Amino acid sequence: MRLSRAFLPTLKETPAEAQIVSHRLMLRAGLIRQTSAGIYAWLPAGLRVLRNVGQIVREEQDRAGAQEILMPTIQAADLWRQSGRYDDYGKEMLRITDRHDRDMLFGPTNEEMVTDIFKTYAKSYRDLPRNLYHIQWKFRDEVRPRFGVMRGREFLMKDAYSFDLTKEGAHHSYRQMFVAYLRTFARMGLKAIPMQADTGPIGGKLSHEFIILAETGESQVFLHKDFLGFDPLAGETDFNADLTPITDLWTSRYAATDEMHDEAAWNAIPEGERVSARGIEVGHIFYFGTKYSATMGLTVPGPDGKPVHPEMGSYGIGVSRLLGALIEASHDENGIIWPDSVAPWKVSILNLKPGDAATDALCGQLYAALPDQALLDDREERPGAKFADADLMGMPWQAIIGPRGAAAGKVELKRRATGERLELSVEEALTKIKG
Amino acid sequence: MRLSRAFLPTLKETPAEAQIVSHRLMLRAGLIRQTSAGIYAWLPAGLRVLRNVGQIVREEQDRAGAQEILMPTIQAADLWRQSGRYDDYGKEMLRITDRHDRDMLFGPTNEEMVTDIFKTYAKSYRDLPRNLYHIQWKFRDEVRPRFGVMRGREFLMKDAYSFDLTKEGAHHSYRQMFVAYLRTFARMGLKAIPMQADTGPIGGKLSHEFIILAETGESQVFLHKDFLGFDPLAGETDFNADLTPITDLWTSRYAATDEMHDEAAWNAIPEGERVSARGIEVGHIFYFGTKYSATMGLTVPGPDGKPVHPEMGSYGIGVSRLLGALIEASHDENGIIWPDSVAPWKVSILNLKPGDAATDALCGQLYAALPDQALLDDREERPGAKFADADLMGMPWQAIIGPRGAAAGKVELKRRATGERLELSVEEALTKIKG
Repeated sequence: MRLSRAFLPTLKETPAEAQIVSHRLMLRAGLIRQTSAGIYAWLPAGLRVLRNVGQIVREEQDRAGAQEILMPTIQAADLWRQSGRYDDYGKEMLRITDRHDRDMLFGPTNEEMVTDIFKTYAKSYRDLPRNLYHIQWKFRDEVRPRFGVMRGREFLMKDAYSFDLTKEGAHHSYRQMFVAYLRTFARMGLKAIPMQADTGPIGGKLSHEFIILAETGESQVFLHKDFLGFDPLAGETDFNADLTPITDLWTSRYAATDEMHDEAAWNAIPEGERVSARGIEVGHIFYFGTKYSATMGLTVPGPDGKPVHPEMGSYGIGVSRLLGALIEASHDENGIIWPDSVAPWKVSILNLKPGDAATDALCGQLYAALPDQALLDDREERPGAKFADADLMGMPWQAIIGPRGAAAGKVELKRRATGERLELSVEEALTKIKG
Repeated sequence: MRLSRAFLPTLKETPAEAQIVSHRLMLRAGLIRQTSAGIYAWLPAGLRVLRNVGQIVREEQDRAGAQEILMPTIQAADLWRQSGRYDDYGKEMLRITDRHDRDMLFGPTNEEMVTDIFKTYAKSYRDLPRNLYHIQWKFRDEVRPRFGVMRGREFLMKDAYSFDLTKEGAHHSYRQMFVAYLRTFARMGLKAIPMQADTGPIGGKLSHEFIILAETGESQVFLHKDFLGFDPLAGETDFNADLTPITDLWTSRYAATDEMHDEAAWNAIPEGERVSARGIEVGHIFYFGTKYSATMGLTVPGPDGKPVHPEMGSYGIGVSRLLGALIEASHDENGIIWPDSVAPWKVSILNLKPGDAATDALCGQLYAALPDQALLDDREERPGAKFADADLMGMPWQAIIGPRGAAAGKVELKRRATGERLELSVEEALTKIKG
């Protein structure tokens, strides 16, 4: 993308309404624009990151054996009356009446609907286990939406729902998602720690939140320092094998949010092994047994012919929220530092003198060799403005090209995260950028 | 995907509520399930086609120079009051009141919102031209939703919006979308004919509908037979060049929907050159000048410093509707015939004797060589049921493997569209399937 023709508007001023750094940077870097309180439009750079994050989530759900579907945003109120949650949900649910005066709602989550869909097709215990997920826009009518996409009203969520014949099967499905989540966040360069959680309004029996560590995180968390050394991507994961060694490791040390914190257990840990940090919730998994299969009337004939209510779990990742979390975890005073795996483009190519033939040619050569991976700053702007915008927008690499370098056939390659600079030939630069 | 573990439920019975063939086949092949009147969940096979169709649309929009953004589903009523359309839109608009009693709505289209967003950032005539598009769920509260995804209430639409400094520029943008649409539908194997259209509730001056020809189409259309010979994919299209030769060709002959039909002009065409056919609208493009830039207060300083209202157009493709249209245009009495470019998987591998070691091995070999491109029917079912389901689901190729072929290392490869059968080695079969 050529910046001279792109719709990538950066702002010099810090918007007054933004209270946290990720919100400020998302507005300044031209990733989002608010259209109503807590509702955002995604501009081209923001949408590219949103899609990259969604794609990592999708790949790891697929790898773990979940199957993607797509449920609609608008649901019938009757479904929620069946589970008893229509009244429970309160004012956070966006309630709608259609032209025929039917009560509808904008889905805040999909336990009822997915159970109802699965009920249509599940004919026997042989149709289990299944895990169905979707990545869809949800709406929660927050009383005070704030912090940008971190607490918006319309937000993109991945929610998966597992159906098993037995409790043991459901626990395996739960562990599959547990491990998939570790992998998902690690691939985005995030340090995510599973922490035992309150089961809240979804209800149920077993639940973990996945909290990423970020200095500017929303809440206080407490964990054993060993977690910082565990690597969720070590080795290929066989999701059909016994996953308890992995889940046991990741639940073997103390880790708790403020809400679930146990002072006695914490004080029992040697002081040098305690890490007190700030965290951001990016995922939440639940095992809730037969709560929805029972209320929604889902049964399948078991191996003995008797009807069984499938054991269920649900598993959420806040996909749009993750963009805020990623920036909270990775930025400096000059702007965003995108991890390679989610960056909107791999490199910003800075043409320091548009119109200079050699400079234009070298920039063009690099740009052409990186189809859909490079943002070319070919605007008529001072170098200083280009440096500032490149730092603000946060591509992992910056290829800085001016007349002097161009004459020598050299690219100055800067790593955004470290500030390291290298003087390289085009071929060497391409090798670095492509990783 | 292994069918024994997949969520791909086919139905033997024809659902009573489905009046047209695409709706019947989408339900029977397990592509969609209705969740409320005119609202559908997309099951795994349907979602894969929806994504493939969306990806072709995206690639051709990008090729034509449009830039992707993503606007939210929920909009503020005030935006629509500004343009005067809030009252005009009537009962098809799904109106919503949030917890703070603000009037909101589920967007049926986005002229107002995109103009408002663009207004924030456009500082000068140098920020023009721009074309912004998004692929997002829309809602129109149809009084009688029917025909499945062809006339649903919640539907996926690609809508693009162009901003130009001059009328001539806007006409060029219009032609870019005109040509992009020709390419888009052709890549899906569809014969789409642009027909001059009434400008309807969007308002404006110049408008074309893109109508695909299908025997079971919803409306009568009239066209010159020459259109059937034009090839929109002949040659690379340079979208920065003058596109009038292409648009002139595609508007050089008579083509009209029933609504716009002119008997006198029709009768002037020699009878042997007239084609009277059935059609389905899949795209609609509009040039409407300054209608929204004026009402929404969008101006930029022109080259002479004086404020100019940008000239605008909007360009829609019914992405979810296209699945119905594709099936109407490509099916037989046994089921769907997916064009290669949009098929959920390239091949159905039919294991005629699961448990037979040689058969399992050959199926496994083929399946492993086609990651994410093959559906393996490894169910314990009679061959007849597998043949019927493979025809119903409509993958372009069927690889039929039983004990006899397996012993000889041979695959029977059937082309779904023609019924042609070939006896091939695994390598030969893979070459065919990968195209």
